[in-house]
Amino acid sequence: MNKIIYVDNAATTAILPEVFEAMKSCLENNFGNASSIYSIGRFAKQELEKSRKIIANCINAEPDEIFFTSCGTESDNWALKSSVKFSGNEHIITSQIEHHAILNSARFLENHGVEVVYLKPDKFGMILPETLESALQDNTKLVSIMFANNEIGTIQPIKELASICKKKNIKFHTDAVQAVGHIKIDVKDLGIDMLSASAHKFNGPKGIGFLYVKKGTSLPAFVHGGAQEKNKRGGTENIASIVGMAKALEINTNNLESNQAKLKNLQKKLIDNILLIEETILTGHPNLRTPGSASFCFKGIEGESILLNLDALGICASSGSACTSGSLDPSHVLLSIGLSHEVAHGSLRIALGANNTMEDVDYIISVLPPIVKKLRAMSPIWNK
Amino acid sequence: MNKIIYVDNAATTAILPEVFEAMKSCLENNFGNASSIYSIGRFAKQELEKSRKIIANCINAEPDEIFFTSCGTESDNWALKSSVKFSGNEHIITSQIEHHAILNSARFLENHGVEVVYLKPDKFGMILPETLESALQDNTKLVSIMFANNEIGTIQPIKELASICKKKNIKFHTDAVQAVGHIKIDVKDLGIDMLSASAHKFNGPKGIGFLYVKKGTSLPAFVHGGAQEKNKRGGTENIASIVGMAKALEINTNNLESNQAKLKNLQKKLIDNILLIEETILTGHPNLRTPGSASFCFKGIEGESILLNLDALGICASSGSACTSGSLDPSHVLLSIGLSHEVAHGSLRIALGANNTMEDVDYIISVLPPIVKKLRAMSPIWNK
Repeated sequence: MNKIIYVDNAATTAILPEVFEAMKSCLENNFGNASSIYSIGRFAKQELEKSRKIIANCINAEPDEIFFTSCGTESDNWALKSSVKFSGNEHIITSQIEHHAILNSARFLENHGVEVVYLKPDKFGMILPETLESALQDNTKLVSIMFANNEIGTIQPIKELASICKKKNIKFHTDAVQAVGHIKIDVKDLGIDMLSASAHKFNGPKGIGFLYVKKGTSLPAFVHGGAQEKNKRGGTENIASIVGMAKALEINTNNLESNQAKLKNLQKKLIDNILLIEETILTGHPNLRTPGSASFCFKGIEGESILLNLDALGICASSGSACTSGSLDPSHVLLSIGLSHEVAHGSLRIALGANNTMEDVDYIISVLPPIVKKLRAMSPIWNK
Repeated sequence: MNKIIYVDNAATTAILPEVFEAMKSCLENNFGNASSIYSIGRFAKQELEKSRKIIANCINAEPDEIFFTSCGTESDNWALKSSVKFSGNEHIITSQIEHHAILNSARFLENHGVEVVYLKPDKFGMILPETLESALQDNTKLVSIMFANNEIGTIQPIKELASICKKKNIKFHTDAVQAVGHIKIDVKDLGIDMLSASAHKFNGPKGIGFLYVKKGTSLPAFVHGGAQEKNKRGGTENIASIVGMAKALEINTNNLESNQAKLKNLQKKLIDNILLIEETILTGHPNLRTPGSASFCFKGIEGESILLNLDALGICASSGSACTSGSLDPSHVLLSIGLSHEVAHGSLRIALGANNTMEDVDYIISVLPPIVKKLRAMSPIWNK
């Protein structure tokens, strides 16, 4: 078996050793219920609130603006579904290239009488401020635009989009699952009202996330239950995972600039070399993209075939979102930026992480061209 | 500091060493996204499905009837909220003594036009089959009655209740968070359509649970997102916690009879001796209660004061549900079984676990009477 080269960090990431150590201590010793008043309950509560503070600091929020959830998907569901009252005259705006956590929550709202507009991005996957501006209505209750795209890496002009909403007193939410821990985020400076994040995308554990909610923003509960999270999210607090998430975000935030510099270097070499393969396009924005993101379409072949060939060589990559694997449809993101079905089928997403090396990149750029060549030679739709 | 004696196992439990080892292996080595097609994704998927099978076996369900959630509270929300269509003519039945995960989900439904009936239990906290029978309506969509109560331990006549529903083609859900791993559950024999469970109540990790849904039962998604859990529960699969939950349930199921025998022995000595304290009542059913559950009311004093005194001696107990701590209201469960506010305020819940010993019980029964005596001596409402 070859060494495994993991370049699917937009799907999930390995947890850092320090994160595991922090979780281990909680799992083994600190099992108390944070809502209990005795010693080990109070200790759990302290760890909970310490973690909330660390996370708040990392995005320039206040601790009481951080609500723990079970994942980014839950955060997205909460943000969307709690923004409407199902009164029959409500409108929300999102985009065509959101993650399914947003898209399928929006469809649920549509099925319950809410009008939803899905903004079309430009060819780089960018939602232009003027596109948003022209879609606003008097009954718009929420605008939700993702921070950075999970398939093509494009970073949205969040500050401009949020500012347009602020002028009209409309709440602005961003699914920042691909951005938190990877890009500097200052919720105050950006003017964000709500933000979703997921720990396992920044080297924390799976099964834990958070929703940032700006003070003063109305937030009905989504998961109803006990008094946890100020009566807004029931369920016994998952201390070990929360502590792990805080540790992961703290480390990634401290290393943000050095990680970015390293990743941009790897990213550039990867993109420059892969684009040497004929009839290959870079999807997403050429510059305004997450530091580790490199996504392509290879004309004439299937993305799945590339993946299987890479897997045989120990390289873990993807053709798009892991959350839609198993589907034979081409990516909604790629279609939305104007690619044909045929081209969109040949997609490859390489998502580098801080633990990747230049050797990994060199290996990928050495093995990928012959794979593409071989697959094209077998392809009935490749006519060169 | 005294040795800690933890007797709040209805609030949460310590994870078993074998559970930690199983999770450690996943957290450190098996971080793949179970929806990805490459090697480490496939390995994660195998672990996921192996766990689903183990859990299904423990309650005599089929693997594809198990849906993973983030906790028992989420499972309860899902069961209730997905049982109605908000059509304006729907009715559900639950009980007055449910956990807040059910009660607050039911209130949410009421706020959206669903009629909810809350059945009153008898003085032992039992929902009588005839009480349920007389509450059924033509538009009843769901009956949700907890398996065992979290405060007073009473076990409901689930098979009879489910059978009444089955005759009328009404779905029957049970919040079995206090029962799974502690009482033998055979969903087929009992005739249950949906069942909620939470790992951290049976020595598994926090932040993971499941919903059993009988094949053929309609189940719309609650957390909308990716294609995970057959398109019904979005969010990257939390493999480490799922593996930990399966391991915990497997061990507890294998040890069910020996644990029960041990706990009933401890429980009997504890109850017999605490009832020697004057003006003390056992709350809940004298026999039909979970094996580790011992709950009392001491007239003339406050439960919180007892807890603080016990905590000072290293004993972790509670006055009721951890999920409502911080509230000054007496327990809704105790009021519902007919106790006065005054008596209900003097509640103490001791929830023994399999790792408790007869020495723990001896210690509790030696220190509790003087605590009660001291507090009563200081109490303005104690007039003996």
